[in-house]
Amino acid sequence: MAGSDDDLAEARALIRRDRAALGTLDATGAPYVSLVLVTADAAGKPLLLLSDLAEHSKNLRRDPRASLLFDGTGGLDQPLTGARITLMGRVAPAPDPADRARYVAQHNEAEGWARMRDFRVYRFEPERAHLVAGFGRIAWLDASALFSGDN
Amino acid sequence: MAGSDDDLAEARALIRRDRAALGTLDATGAPYVSLVLVTADAAGKPLLLLSDLAEHSKNLRRDPRASLLFDGTGGLDQPLTGARITLMGRVAPAPDPADRARYVAQHNEAEGWARMRDFRVYRFEPERAHLVAGFGRIAWLDASALFSGDN
Repeated sequence: MAGSDDDLAEARALIRRDRAALGTLDATGAPYVSLVLVTADAAGKPLLLLSDLAEHSKNLRRDPRASLLFDGTGGLDQPLTGARITLMGRVAPAPDPADRARYVAQHNEAEGWARMRDFRVYRFEPERAHLVAGFGRIAWLDASALFSGDN
Repeated sequence: MAGSDDDLAEARALIRRDRAALGTLDATGAPYVSLVLVTADAAGKPLLLLSDLAEHSKNLRRDPRASLLFDGTGGLDQPLTGARITLMGRVAPAPDPADRARYVAQHNEAEGWARMRDFRVYRFEPERAHLVAGFGRIAWLDASALFSGDN
């Protein structure tokens, strides 16, 4: 589960991308996938800015378990030869204004709605990660190996 | 739930894209999101080609409930102003060789592994769809309105 140095480097680069597909659970426990814009916090963990009114936010209030797919295969003729990573973990509120500032610094267009009362910043707390770096290069990675300690 | 004509046209265009993020459930019922290449069948429903050995395939054998996110926001300066759609439904085997031929015709690179014994074609049977066509233009759509009957 520790992963090679190459795997960890590839994984860390992927999870610093600024968008991901978020998987949550609907009221029946079925999966629901939506688009989110993300920013890495100081430890490399993803920060999200979500509207209370959005489906994924309603899902997370019922069950905080979530998954994030970071896709590094865009533009490849054969996408499945490229690298992507699935994070599995939980989403928790991140009320520290420093996290909000960090998010808005990367996503300038979010500045307006980040101040609205129904938008909140959340941190994705990864438990494990599944890296697929092309055919045959597949590894489960511990979150503890991927992220640099607590923030 | 029927959706306007504009919503339906936008939704149909999105679900004909050739890649999506697939949400499935792991052994604990937590969400797991992975990258898949897809092809629309004659009715517009997504076909997938999955390895028996892949995590998402193991997940679907336990629980066929799944979600597909088609993201039409790539390349936009402000991705959240763009259109994307979440399908919710179930994944079922599609053993008809015509479906396999259709898949390989779009994804030529899959021709080799489509013949391997551990790869199978599946159909995503949508039950409902959640279209987000930019801020404020959000609609739940019935699958019956989106897809042209049975195949």
